Amino acid sequence: MHIRIYYEDTDAGGIVYHTNFIKYCERARSELFFAQDMLPMSQEGAGFVVRHIDANFLGMAKLGDLIEVQTQLITQKKASLVLEQTIYKDAQKIFQMHITLAYLSKGKPYRIPETFLKLLS
Amino acid sequence: MHIRIYYEDTDAGGIVYHTNFIKYCERARSELFFAQDMLPMSQEGAGFVVRHIDANFLGMAKLGDLIEVQTQLITQKKASLVLEQTIYKDAQKIFQMHITLAYLSKGKPYRIPETFLKLLS
Amino acid sequence: MHIRIYYEDTDAGGIVYHTNFIKYCERARSELFFAQDMLPMSQEGAGFVVRHIDANFLGMAKLGDLIEVQTQLITQKKASLVLEQTIYKDAQKIFQMHITLAYLSKGKPYRIPETFLKLLS
Amino acid sequence: MHIRIYYEDTDAGGIVYHTNFIKYCERARSELFFAQDMLPMSQEGAGFVVRHIDANFLGMAKLGDLIEVQTQLITQKKASLVLEQTIYKDAQKIFQMHITLAYLSKGKPYRIPETFLKLLS
Repeated sequence: MHIRIYYEDTDAGGIVYHTNFIKYCERARSELFFAQDMLPMSQEGAGFVVRHIDANFLGMAKLGDLIEVQTQLITQKKASLVLEQTIYKDAQKIFQMHITLAYLSKGKPYRIPETFLKLLS
Repeated sequence: MHIRIYYEDTDAGGIVYHTNFIKYCERARSELFFAQDMLPMSQEGAGFVVRHIDANFLGMAKLGDLIEVQTQLITQKKASLVLEQTIYKDAQKIFQMHITLAYLSKGKPYRIPETFLKLLS
Repeated sequence: MHIRIYYEDTDAGGIVYHTNFIKYCERARSELFFAQDMLPMSQEGAGFVVRHIDANFLGMAKLGDLIEVQTQLITQKKASLVLEQTIYKDAQKIFQMHITLAYLSKGKPYRIPETFLKLLS
Repeated sequence: MHIRIYYEDTDAGGIVYHTNFIKYCERARSELFFAQDMLPMSQEGAGFVVRHIDANFLGMAKLGDLIEVQTQLITQKKASLVLEQTIYKDAQKIFQMHITLAYLSKGKPYRIPETFLKLLS
């Protein structure tokens, strides 16, 4: 998934505001679903919740850059999973995080649907 | 209502990203309700929707600035109203807009509650 | 230019937060430049500044929607111009604004470069 | 430092969008400087850069909530430091992260000024 850096993404330091890298990763996760005309939640309202993020900021991006987000399934349990998401600029790694997502229904852990696991792996 | 300018508010131009002035005005409208422990919507889900904005960008703000938003009721009808919202930096006017809000219940115009009108005037 | 609606674009009302439509229009203006490997500013630091926005909010967009921004030059002067920017969802107009941009160098009105005018018209 | 949750902070899930907790922590770090009429960078352009974030999402916040960010210095080296930042809602911990900040001048590690260390500890 490719993402363009616009003015709204940058800050007075002249580069992308740090938390935006984490937003781009969320866009990439959602796009896996949207591209299949699906929403990342069940019809009964079950859905993913972010539990933990371990992120390394390795480089920067600036106005007009085109970056790429890659998503890979690392660990998979019944009601949670860990993804590795990496952002590249011109083939150079500028951000990488491990994110733990729990799948919840009415606030309780719930079995992740098979179709969702396929999309994320 | 006073608002501080943080990194997230600025862009690579070194100043506040233009649409953020419009977000600050929304904060100021909401704060009128939150400060009274109220939400800007009825228990049945009726609420305000933005219909029209006419905005003049008169100055700029930068990282660390403390700005002030003032809100004034200009026109009032049964199911809509017009507010004038002005942003000041050091007593200098840097932004002013007229915003038209419609009050809707289930997508249809609905009488604005008296308590809401009092808060906004 | 097509734009996908992600979680970050929506608010607790379940639909796109109103000022984001104005951000999408800025993305569309910038993309006209980025797509040609250009930045919307001169090498000497001259650039566009938003002076006035007159916006009509005609419909809504929600999570996962794909919207389209169209940009049209309406008025053109030496150091400023007016654009009409319209957002469509499934061929239905959901937002339209007229935006006045001034072109400034060191804070003073400056002649808009020919190449920039061509890109915007 | 107290922060109010506005519409812009929430998403279609009805609660605060996850990355915003990380933005609030940046506001809290910056406010330590702004409150003293200082900027979090030297006059020569040296400043902090985020290197690593390890964050636990423990609870949620919703529209109108008033949350509190607390910042504590954990580790301190010549040119970097680790802060623990915790967000509370009604005395309940809803977010906690360890963030590693490097202090850079012209892209190279640089000794953190004494005044900056005092502000952060």
